[in-house]
Amino acid sequence: MTKMIMHGCNGRMGHVIIDLVKEDKDIEVVAGVDAYGESSYDFPVFKSLEECNVAADVIVDFSNASAAEGLLAYCEKTSTPVVLCSTGLSEEQLLKVKETSRNVAVLKSANMSVGVNALMKVLKEVSPLLAAAGFDIEIVEKHHNQKLDAPSGTAIALADSINDSLGNEYEYVYDRSTRREKRPEKEIGISAVRGGTIVGDHDVIFAGHDEVVTLSHRAYSRAIFGKGAIEAAKFLAGKPAGMYDMSDVLA
Amino acid sequence: MTKMIMHGCNGRMGHVIIDLVKEDKDIEVVAGVDAYGESSYDFPVFKSLEECNVAADVIVDFSNASAAEGLLAYCEKTSTPVVLCSTGLSEEQLLKVKETSRNVAVLKSANMSVGVNALMKVLKEVSPLLAAAGFDIEIVEKHHNQKLDAPSGTAIALADSINDSLGNEYEYVYDRSTRREKRPEKEIGISAVRGGTIVGDHDVIFAGHDEVVTLSHRAYSRAIFGKGAIEAAKFLAGKPAGMYDMSDVLA
Amino acid sequence: MTKMIMHGCNGRMGHVIIDLVKEDKDIEVVAGVDAYGESSYDFPVFKSLEECNVAADVIVDFSNASAAEGLLAYCEKTSTPVVLCSTGLSEEQLLKVKETSRNVAVLKSANMSVGVNALMKVLKEVSPLLAAAGFDIEIVEKHHNQKLDAPSGTAIALADSINDSLGNEYEYVYDRSTRREKRPEKEIGISAVRGGTIVGDHDVIFAGHDEVVTLSHRAYSRAIFGKGAIEAAKFLAGKPAGMYDMSDVLA
Amino acid sequence: MTKMIMHGCNGRMGHVIIDLVKEDKDIEVVAGVDAYGESSYDFPVFKSLEECNVAADVIVDFSNASAAEGLLAYCEKTSTPVVLCSTGLSEEQLLKVKETSRNVAVLKSANMSVGVNALMKVLKEVSPLLAAAGFDIEIVEKHHNQKLDAPSGTAIALADSINDSLGNEYEYVYDRSTRREKRPEKEIGISAVRGGTIVGDHDVIFAGHDEVVTLSHRAYSRAIFGKGAIEAAKFLAGKPAGMYDMSDVLA
Repeated sequence: MTKMIMHGCNGRMGHVIIDLVKEDKDIEVVAGVDAYGESSYDFPVFKSLEECNVAADVIVDFSNASAAEGLLAYCEKTSTPVVLCSTGLSEEQLLKVKETSRNVAVLKSANMSVGVNALMKVLKEVSPLLAAAGFDIEIVEKHHNQKLDAPSGTAIALADSINDSLGNEYEYVYDRSTRREKRPEKEIGISAVRGGTIVGDHDVIFAGHDEVVTLSHRAYSRAIFGKGAIEAAKFLAGKPAGMYDMSDVLA
Repeated sequence: MTKMIMHGCNGRMGHVIIDLVKEDKDIEVVAGVDAYGESSYDFPVFKSLEECNVAADVIVDFSNASAAEGLLAYCEKTSTPVVLCSTGLSEEQLLKVKETSRNVAVLKSANMSVGVNALMKVLKEVSPLLAAAGFDIEIVEKHHNQKLDAPSGTAIALADSINDSLGNEYEYVYDRSTRREKRPEKEIGISAVRGGTIVGDHDVIFAGHDEVVTLSHRAYSRAIFGKGAIEAAKFLAGKPAGMYDMSDVLA
Repeated sequence: MTKMIMHGCNGRMGHVIIDLVKEDKDIEVVAGVDAYGESSYDFPVFKSLEECNVAADVIVDFSNASAAEGLLAYCEKTSTPVVLCSTGLSEEQLLKVKETSRNVAVLKSANMSVGVNALMKVLKEVSPLLAAAGFDIEIVEKHHNQKLDAPSGTAIALADSINDSLGNEYEYVYDRSTRREKRPEKEIGISAVRGGTIVGDHDVIFAGHDEVVTLSHRAYSRAIFGKGAIEAAKFLAGKPAGMYDMSDVLA
Repeated sequence: MTKMIMHGCNGRMGHVIIDLVKEDKDIEVVAGVDAYGESSYDFPVFKSLEECNVAADVIVDFSNASAAEGLLAYCEKTSTPVVLCSTGLSEEQLLKVKETSRNVAVLKSANMSVGVNALMKVLKEVSPLLAAAGFDIEIVEKHHNQKLDAPSGTAIALADSINDSLGNEYEYVYDRSTRREKRPEKEIGISAVRGGTIVGDHDVIFAGHDEVVTLSHRAYSRAIFGKGAIEAAKFLAGKPAGMYDMSDVLA
């Protein structure tokens, strides 16, 4: 049974993950960490990892960027692998993540769902083939009306994944209303739709001569990100030092 | 049998319409007009309407904005109704269109297809209902990679149709990548996807709390615009002076 | 403040509705009824309506067909309007519903969501128009892999709504693999997709000559049905006897 | 310059291919074969391959099953590679195809488009991954109202491609309206929508727990099948004996 620490246990995703772990017989939460107050969990909760005196096989992190340094230091000191799901890390913090991965297993992905990561895998293979056949590439993402940033981190990660497979020659375009010209070939248009409570839709569109191929992912709840994080945690426990991502979990 | 003049008979849409008219026993082309050279049609072709000495019940126009003044003058002088499909008319020209319609029947629509006009009709009814229930409204349009402008005239017409039904309080937004904020309520996001040879897709998205209603139209060929123009021509022949649009044809 | 009785308070939809009512300042649950055991609600719960001694302005029913007779008798006796959401009522029970509505307000809809009911409204208007223009009509619905019946009640209700508007001349077809023929005109194909945890997608497809119009609804959670039921309850309280449906609530 | 014989040159796809070849500087039609009458092509047309006295590097076949034996015999005798696009071959004929491929290059695919074949390639990789993660698999195809068979050959080929990658344990289900049960796991539902002039849409749906991945292909004209056949012809000319399919062309 994998023992995990939930870092950010009082947040929305923390709750989701703790609920999901209860239904999984291969993993258990042995401690929680959260800067914000008390919890009614049936495991001990600490205000910071420094106070935490419970050993674990893996840490799952869904807190926020400000806690990254403390988290990485703890993982390195205690040799505890970490599934890093906080977003918005600075360049400096990302460097620190890489350094840490020399001494302990670190898994980081833009999106923790099985579906999005399956899509990423597929895009690496299919993009060169369809681009060579003259297909244009576009991405449309849809999220709820409370989301602050656009386009989504996942849309950018999908575009990066495609661009990597094509020699990184493509430019990303977010707005076509301000120019008047035919579409350049080496361009990936990324459109962001916002409305209601949409959890997260992503369409990758390959538009060719008289045919269109679309690869799309639709999330119905945030539980899929929690589920992915749990699979990642079970995978990462006991792994040697290094940088991992969800494609390793799915392989 | 309705007699029509095809204004812009050598252009892409001119060819489409002339081919479609051949299969329609209620209408025939009695003359063509086109600034560009000779044609091998089985009806006389003139370089301008001024030279045209064949009378008709209606003119179908798919030429371009530069020919608008001559066209309108001819229609008024000869009392010939006109289906006006040229796009990109200036404000001044649009005023002239209105003036002309006091003396002769003029039909003008942003999109001539039955499907898009059915959608417009529906939007006027459903938008107030869904907006009142808190649904956000977004439009995504997709067109081929040779299209110069974005968003499409049809997308704007759909947005206008919605906005009209909601008291014209909504702002159109084409790019969200340059701001960092929650989606304002009184906003219609319009995204433009460009790729391959896509003839024209339009999705109107109403995103509410845990539910999404989408009304969409997909064109598979330009023939649908020609077909709509022919229906409009048959409808307009013999009608009294006034401004008409495709919703009158469908009613 | 509207006082409501939740009939079927321990079921899945009962829980959903009770949670939603807590956030609504215009309505409150004054009693619950459920054949199954105890509840920890902050209102009294009775094993049957006969035992219920709390008066209310309206009853919301999400129990099951077997409880229908008792429910209708109670509503008639106490002149309490009822929002009837149980499905699978027999022909006999449906007759009884109609009879009851002569003496008390009864609201019944195949689907309680704002979105689906907006779609129904629109279909009545747009179907005759598009059918007259030669568009074929098809429905595709998608639900989770635990659903026993196919096609969904909502798909049938959408088809009925379309068929009503077209003189009830259309036949429904669920399988084309066993015949070898061109599609007859007066047919509505209904396809049922089953998989994962899909809450409920419905696409109504109008396929014409080189153009396709699609009206679709996607549910992201069952809360939308609860929300619709609550709106219906607030609407129905105080209304005179008669049969109502969700289109009255949205009008 | 590859020299090709168009087998079935007077049929709909024959015309499409001959037109496309004119725009391609790497391939030319040197002869046509068609059982039906005269043609006005600028290359000689023969009533059968037996009468054909023009040598070629490759034959493209879009005739019909009844001509298969003669075609295969000719290819073997003259060592001319063949792109076989006729559908509806009998078991016996398919065996003969295999035999012929021992002596000459034969390319056969259920669908000649780049897009569908890219999808097939991707499905082999992604299906095991998503099936292992508990995703259910469904296919929805849409075609015009003149199509006699359902589901489409391409839908079956997609299902076969998926099934192959999963150990061929899945059953195909075309109708769920006649049973009342939860969806079995080892099932691929295939739905056929018919309407208007839809050229051919195929959606492969992977529905998991709270997420759905969809891979879809949409054809806008039959030209894509012709284009694929031409690419296949250029690829196949000069190749050694063996069975090939479009995935070899795309590799």
